[in-house]
Amino acid sequence: MNREEVKDLKPSALRALIRDGRWTDHTIGLAADYVQANLVILPRHYAFDFLVFCQRNPKPCPVLEVTEPGDPRIRYMAQEADLRTDLPMYRVFKDGVCVDEVSDVNSLWRDDLVGFLLGCSATFEYALIRANIRLRHIEEGKITPAYVSGIPCNRAGPFSGPMVVSMRPIRYDQVLQAARVTSRYTATHGGPVHIGDPAAIGITDLNEVMFGEPVEIRDNELPVFWACGITPQAVALQARPEFMITHLAGHMFVTDLLADEIAVG
Amino acid sequence: MNREEVKDLKPSALRALIRDGRWTDHTIGLAADYVQANLVILPRHYAFDFLVFCQRNPKPCPVLEVTEPGDPRIRYMAQEADLRTDLPMYRVFKDGVCVDEVSDVNSLWRDDLVGFLLGCSATFEYALIRANIRLRHIEEGKITPAYVSGIPCNRAGPFSGPMVVSMRPIRYDQVLQAARVTSRYTATHGGPVHIGDPAAIGITDLNEVMFGEPVEIRDNELPVFWACGITPQAVALQARPEFMITHLAGHMFVTDLLADEIAVG
Repeated sequence: MNREEVKDLKPSALRALIRDGRWTDHTIGLAADYVQANLVILPRHYAFDFLVFCQRNPKPCPVLEVTEPGDPRIRYMAQEADLRTDLPMYRVFKDGVCVDEVSDVNSLWRDDLVGFLLGCSATFEYALIRANIRLRHIEEGKITPAYVSGIPCNRAGPFSGPMVVSMRPIRYDQVLQAARVTSRYTATHGGPVHIGDPAAIGITDLNEVMFGEPVEIRDNELPVFWACGITPQAVALQARPEFMITHLAGHMFVTDLLADEIAVG
Repeated sequence: MNREEVKDLKPSALRALIRDGRWTDHTIGLAADYVQANLVILPRHYAFDFLVFCQRNPKPCPVLEVTEPGDPRIRYMAQEADLRTDLPMYRVFKDGVCVDEVSDVNSLWRDDLVGFLLGCSATFEYALIRANIRLRHIEEGKITPAYVSGIPCNRAGPFSGPMVVSMRPIRYDQVLQAARVTSRYTATHGGPVHIGDPAAIGITDLNEVMFGEPVEIRDNELPVFWACGITPQAVALQARPEFMITHLAGHMFVTDLLADEIAVG
């Protein structure tokens, strides 16, 4: 299957392809009107602290669904979905170190695992584009640049660390509308955490990305920073859990919910 | 102290009075611009399931803060506050039965207790009044009528049950604005769960309240229903935990956050 063939599939059909191993590439731009979700899977004894961490840091860690311990089925964000097979690629961590990248985690599933689906900024990027706000990293075929900011997350149990932020250059006359549009999507990071001078949030060099690729900021633009879905993974890794599974960046879970179905206001 | 003397106190001064046992009456109408919160305290081994329950039912159970197990201090919703003393009245439950009503819980505190502060509709009622929407129960000095609806909550562990809803009659020409205004307050129940015919959500007789007092619905009005903060207490009681503490209805925790500080959009 090529990207052109799958890009307009409904989420259930797309997940079926992924489940059958026929699509292992990234999901950006696929089923574009639907909410996509980042994934963190942790053993049950980390689950309360991790969920409290998300409650205390709702901008980087908006929780869309928590699965029943040991049960890989999704009940709220999709009909008929299985966390073990329905994402294109997974990363497996032991003691905070990535030990494998795989296209399903059937053989790794355990009775004590809890899955967390977390909102992903792909959702609000389409909203920005629909509002005629151009996103340079998309136009240049790059991955959104992400930075480790100086904004500390609120700690919960072993989970702590700085907030990771993504940056998009926005034209002066569109900054307010960009903030307004994204604020509606509270389940997928919401409005910006900072507008303007990167140094104010501890970022000294916009070329030094933690993830993604730098993009140019033109004279009539401001850098606008949103909380990034990499944060919970970075924080979970820093806690060095003995076992954790995440999605591979860009290879998200595609839900059955339209983005506008969960928008506020 | 009488109500007139305390009603314009800042939250920190009001909490100090409450902590000293000089105010044990309800908090409705006090520090009116600030967010007030319902309280549920449960042993640690219920905490994950209860927090997941709240995540799955965000309209009746909007979580404002979760305390560290064993630590009665509030860290995010207020400066210098203690869950054991800073609410005017508490109810103590054993095996799902109320065994006491007390003005502090110092002697009952345990190392395994976790506090949950949950959004309360007092917050959005002031927003409705500021939008010139009259609330009959307030004008008549009544407690908001609440009903057990036929809307099931999403289960988590031992926590399940129907959603409790509050009802306010709203003039036809103000219904949309009432929905819009309250939708901004996602942390305190958000917009209505139902507008119009009570039977559609399983309520057959508006005179049969679960809590509060019935109010008249006039010819130019519709009954409008919001998710009610009694829901998490009702659901927690149904799970019959061996130990639980809640606030006494109307005797809320007064936070340092202005309602408009956490409004969306």
